[in-house]
Amino acid sequence: MSLRSLGSDNHATVHPQIMAALTEVNHGQTPSYGTDIWSLELEKQLKKEFGSQTESFLVFNGTAANVLALRAMVTNYQSVFCSDISHVLMDECGAPEVIAGVKLIPIPSLNGKITLEALEKYWMRRGDQHYSQTQGISLTQPTELGTLYTTEELRAIITWSKKKNLKIHIDGARLANAAVGLNKSFREFTSEMGVDIISFGGTKNGLMLGELVIICNPTLARNFQYLRKQSLQLPSKSRYLAIQFLTYFKNELWKNIATHSLSMAQDLYSKIHHYPEIQIKYPVESNAIFPSIPKSWFKPLREQFFFYLWDEHEYICRWMTSWDTTREDIEKLANEILKLSKTPKT
Amino acid sequence: MSLRSLGSDNHATVHPQIMAALTEVNHGQTPSYGTDIWSLELEKQLKKEFGSQTESFLVFNGTAANVLALRAMVTNYQSVFCSDISHVLMDECGAPEVIAGVKLIPIPSLNGKITLEALEKYWMRRGDQHYSQTQGISLTQPTELGTLYTTEELRAIITWSKKKNLKIHIDGARLANAAVGLNKSFREFTSEMGVDIISFGGTKNGLMLGELVIICNPTLARNFQYLRKQSLQLPSKSRYLAIQFLTYFKNELWKNIATHSLSMAQDLYSKIHHYPEIQIKYPVESNAIFPSIPKSWFKPLREQFFFYLWDEHEYICRWMTSWDTTREDIEKLANEILKLSKTPKT
Amino acid sequence: MSLRSLGSDNHATVHPQIMAALTEVNHGQTPSYGTDIWSLELEKQLKKEFGSQTESFLVFNGTAANVLALRAMVTNYQSVFCSDISHVLMDECGAPEVIAGVKLIPIPSLNGKITLEALEKYWMRRGDQHYSQTQGISLTQPTELGTLYTTEELRAIITWSKKKNLKIHIDGARLANAAVGLNKSFREFTSEMGVDIISFGGTKNGLMLGELVIICNPTLARNFQYLRKQSLQLPSKSRYLAIQFLTYFKNELWKNIATHSLSMAQDLYSKIHHYPEIQIKYPVESNAIFPSIPKSWFKPLREQFFFYLWDEHEYICRWMTSWDTTREDIEKLANEILKLSKTPKT
Amino acid sequence: MSLRSLGSDNHATVHPQIMAALTEVNHGQTPSYGTDIWSLELEKQLKKEFGSQTESFLVFNGTAANVLALRAMVTNYQSVFCSDISHVLMDECGAPEVIAGVKLIPIPSLNGKITLEALEKYWMRRGDQHYSQTQGISLTQPTELGTLYTTEELRAIITWSKKKNLKIHIDGARLANAAVGLNKSFREFTSEMGVDIISFGGTKNGLMLGELVIICNPTLARNFQYLRKQSLQLPSKSRYLAIQFLTYFKNELWKNIATHSLSMAQDLYSKIHHYPEIQIKYPVESNAIFPSIPKSWFKPLREQFFFYLWDEHEYICRWMTSWDTTREDIEKLANEILKLSKTPKT
Repeated sequence: MSLRSLGSDNHATVHPQIMAALTEVNHGQTPSYGTDIWSLELEKQLKKEFGSQTESFLVFNGTAANVLALRAMVTNYQSVFCSDISHVLMDECGAPEVIAGVKLIPIPSLNGKITLEALEKYWMRRGDQHYSQTQGISLTQPTELGTLYTTEELRAIITWSKKKNLKIHIDGARLANAAVGLNKSFREFTSEMGVDIISFGGTKNGLMLGELVIICNPTLARNFQYLRKQSLQLPSKSRYLAIQFLTYFKNELWKNIATHSLSMAQDLYSKIHHYPEIQIKYPVESNAIFPSIPKSWFKPLREQFFFYLWDEHEYICRWMTSWDTTREDIEKLANEILKLSKTPKT
Repeated sequence: MSLRSLGSDNHATVHPQIMAALTEVNHGQTPSYGTDIWSLELEKQLKKEFGSQTESFLVFNGTAANVLALRAMVTNYQSVFCSDISHVLMDECGAPEVIAGVKLIPIPSLNGKITLEALEKYWMRRGDQHYSQTQGISLTQPTELGTLYTTEELRAIITWSKKKNLKIHIDGARLANAAVGLNKSFREFTSEMGVDIISFGGTKNGLMLGELVIICNPTLARNFQYLRKQSLQLPSKSRYLAIQFLTYFKNELWKNIATHSLSMAQDLYSKIHHYPEIQIKYPVESNAIFPSIPKSWFKPLREQFFFYLWDEHEYICRWMTSWDTTREDIEKLANEILKLSKTPKT
Repeated sequence: MSLRSLGSDNHATVHPQIMAALTEVNHGQTPSYGTDIWSLELEKQLKKEFGSQTESFLVFNGTAANVLALRAMVTNYQSVFCSDISHVLMDECGAPEVIAGVKLIPIPSLNGKITLEALEKYWMRRGDQHYSQTQGISLTQPTELGTLYTTEELRAIITWSKKKNLKIHIDGARLANAAVGLNKSFREFTSEMGVDIISFGGTKNGLMLGELVIICNPTLARNFQYLRKQSLQLPSKSRYLAIQFLTYFKNELWKNIATHSLSMAQDLYSKIHHYPEIQIKYPVESNAIFPSIPKSWFKPLREQFFFYLWDEHEYICRWMTSWDTTREDIEKLANEILKLSKTPKT
Repeated sequence: MSLRSLGSDNHATVHPQIMAALTEVNHGQTPSYGTDIWSLELEKQLKKEFGSQTESFLVFNGTAANVLALRAMVTNYQSVFCSDISHVLMDECGAPEVIAGVKLIPIPSLNGKITLEALEKYWMRRGDQHYSQTQGISLTQPTELGTLYTTEELRAIITWSKKKNLKIHIDGARLANAAVGLNKSFREFTSEMGVDIISFGGTKNGLMLGELVIICNPTLARNFQYLRKQSLQLPSKSRYLAIQFLTYFKNELWKNIATHSLSMAQDLYSKIHHYPEIQIKYPVESNAIFPSIPKSWFKPLREQFFFYLWDEHEYICRWMTSWDTTREDIEKLANEILKLSKTPKT
């Protein structure tokens, strides 16, 4: 039996409603490559969620969604701004550069978020043929540090970007968590604000696997099917990806899942933030907490839960909740901390 | 309700044993990215199937398996021989060239198979810096025309290739069908013959999705994990891919599936090959039949079954059986043909 | 002292007028990267030669001109038709595929030329996401076999291509030879016929080095400067490339050079085509002759001249004349052949 | 007549000895693509300069030398450290990423130089498949700010890099200036210290055009010829590049040229560094000075000389000397500054 995990929301199981839907759809032969009725229905559903101009494409994982979004957004002699801790920069093994042919320009971040001031500083050398011209910006929402761009922050960055004629990408591997955190519908903080293209995550939110590239700007959708196929992302038995997302959107299952994840994180936060030994490094705005803890606590806590040491110098951990994190998990962790805190220092 | 389909083996459902295994594995949290116990067990199973030196990597689809195999096999100033009708050449939207950076050299084929004579003719210009040096060969088994390289043919081509120091790739999207057709274990016609790397298909053989890159030559496995990640193919919740293949290999489920598919094709062949109006274009050696039919038959047959018109000049159809093709399907098609054949010509 | 050469027109020296111009321009400091007065004047000159809408870009060699033209013409999920013996396919070490990201579709050729019939056969699968959509055609003029597309042939192919919405590239490493051979101005058989982009050669026509990408279709010129820089082709001390081409166009030096090369080839042809031992394999329409000769002649001829054996099965040689081929060269070669022909066969 | 220029050393003419050599070599036909006697002699010469194991390859420009060096040094799922102001990062329009497929990791620099402390901080995540593994380091010598790594600094960085198994590249667009600045032979601060591969500049040091990739580590030279050809860098009439470098090395012409450039920069420095209005931003160790000047001085100075404003916030200029900068140039500039300094402030 594996340890309970606060390692990542991809350690979780598939949500039972989604697993049930997979079983239910498993009868009868149907065309492949996105022409089945579930795939077509999903496309309609996404127009409801993101606006009638939306084009959407199923892909296999988050790296793929990001790389395809970047590849659709700029051509391969252009560059894209991203935060200096973004997943596209730090965790894709060079895929944006090598597979999409996109140069990334890392922008110093604050709590994981790009600021307007930093953008202004890195905006330079327009028309200089020696310099890869920046034509896009990639924002992660929620960020890799579990923080959220407020709608005001988003609006400011998007307005600035539009003035510079930049295309806007949202890396939304956990976009539903942002929707719940901001208390907005998906479209209110994406398409309606002028976002051009979105990586919309499923795998980390209760699906078995599957992500979506959601294209709000129709000019980016032209020929996207060829980009997807060439980039190794055309699903064959597409009904089995589509039905997962259909179930995810049905009766707002996504909202239940995200609300649970966020409330687990808040619960944990409320139980531990007051310990003098613990410092919560970033605002807890979605489903992750980054506490720095005493070094001596690490081993005993890891015996109870799997989780990552995010920074070994400051002993910052990442505790990530998911749809299947339980109240018992949180209480158990809180109790362990209570015990450790009471242990007399030697 | 969709039509019954002889369109492709990816129109089929997931085999119930595999679907059951997915449901069964869906409990408890577990690490991701191939570190779960099912993924580790699958690696062991593949060493049994292909030899103890085997390294194996889960990927999402067949295009990915092919492109990753080519990328691992040669560097991007080198070229690879493939047949002039091969999937890598004709059906990957340029992925081998653009994503793997591999130049493909199409070799004229006979019944879908590369011949030694053709290879000799295209072997040229060694050491000429203007010419992309050929360093690999990609064979499809079974071929895109449903034919099989015999073990003698394979041995001859592999021996020739080894003399030229070429690496050998097998595109085995339906490798199990070849194993049953040749009545060999997997290793007997791959690793034990000197094959370096294999695309091993799952999706078209009863899985929900998933393919394997099986590396028989360990020097190609070094650093393959980075290639896979960068090429957008690292599965996150890997248990759900691994358990499908584990089930596929357990109690030789693969053999049942392939045997059924092949017997359905033979059944169909035996029922229709004698019609004077029908010409079977290629030997029926796996799960596909390519009959040329009278043009007037196309419409009525398509009203009963979905299938592709492979060649619109000669009216060649492709009828492909799968694990869920039924005896009733075959009889119904045979009866339709009987009716059409009896219809007086106008 | 090197042997006299009929190996290639890049074995020749720099034309003395061009060398003199290089020396003359070598005084005073001047801005770089195409902003010097000579580069600007060259741009004007090319508008005269090819039409007022022409944009032109200096690059270093022919491979670069071809690859940049292809990269500007199509995006990297699209494909381009070319002849099955074309330089882009056979002699660029995979650069079109790997550097431009273009899939090449080889079309069977006749005397080095693509035919309409072959094009029709290879035109297929529009809108099929599995197939790299063909969006361009590359023609070599003169061809690699020294033959010329007549204006009628060109017009037919270009008309067909325009109907299919294909962009048209001319690989004109020796375009001046075609102009003289066809007795046309440059624009008459390129821009005025609807050609979109041209690789215009200098190196093989008396320059020290340098080629031009000439863009007749202004939409392809947008952002080309970034493509050139990124593709390693932005010349720094650009005056030294520009002055060579300015000299080449001044007083139609190009016409003198091409006329001389072609007349040398015709001279040689007239002196040798009647020998029964010799078979001239292709029409002699520019500066190359491809004779098949008796195997026994090869060694004694190669002791007098350097040249390539083009086909070792049929003993076809390639004899290529250049601006500095002399009448003495031709006579000497003709005399050698006379001697060999008179030698009694053993 | 163009303005005198302190804009860049590529505004200069070709050194007369080099131009004379070009004229002299311009007779007789000779094989191409590096097989002429001058190219072969140059290879020998470079073994003398850099060690007997040296392999060398002519290319056209500095971007190409850098990109090819990086492409040879690491594979395209690996990354390379470079300074955050390096030419490879900032001035190649994304060529390292797109053409070489290399992810660059910018390291904060001090006076243009990478420090050991910064390297330690950026050395991370070995064996983590999500992170592009760093396998090389690129150092610019002299740096983009005209500073020099001392031999002690070089030794420390190289020793550290070797321990991490990193390959070492030197971007030496002006390597001769470093040799003179350090008072070392080329090999003493490159190959003998363990450098693997070098971009050796010609264009900015008195040549018409041409750079060299010098490979000190023979394992990187294997197959480099194909990389060069595919990367659009195989010179055709190679004698005209080779003779320039042969002349450059003959009688240590390179030393004369570099010594002159450096002495011009020192001369200028000595004449202006004491003005209270001027702040020299970086140590003057090769042929560039970066003074911040009063904003009001910019216009009058630019009327006398062409040069770049490096930083428009601090009004930092870049004044770059070259082989053809004259003592009169320096005096004229110094006099202008004297005049401006005496002008009463309003």
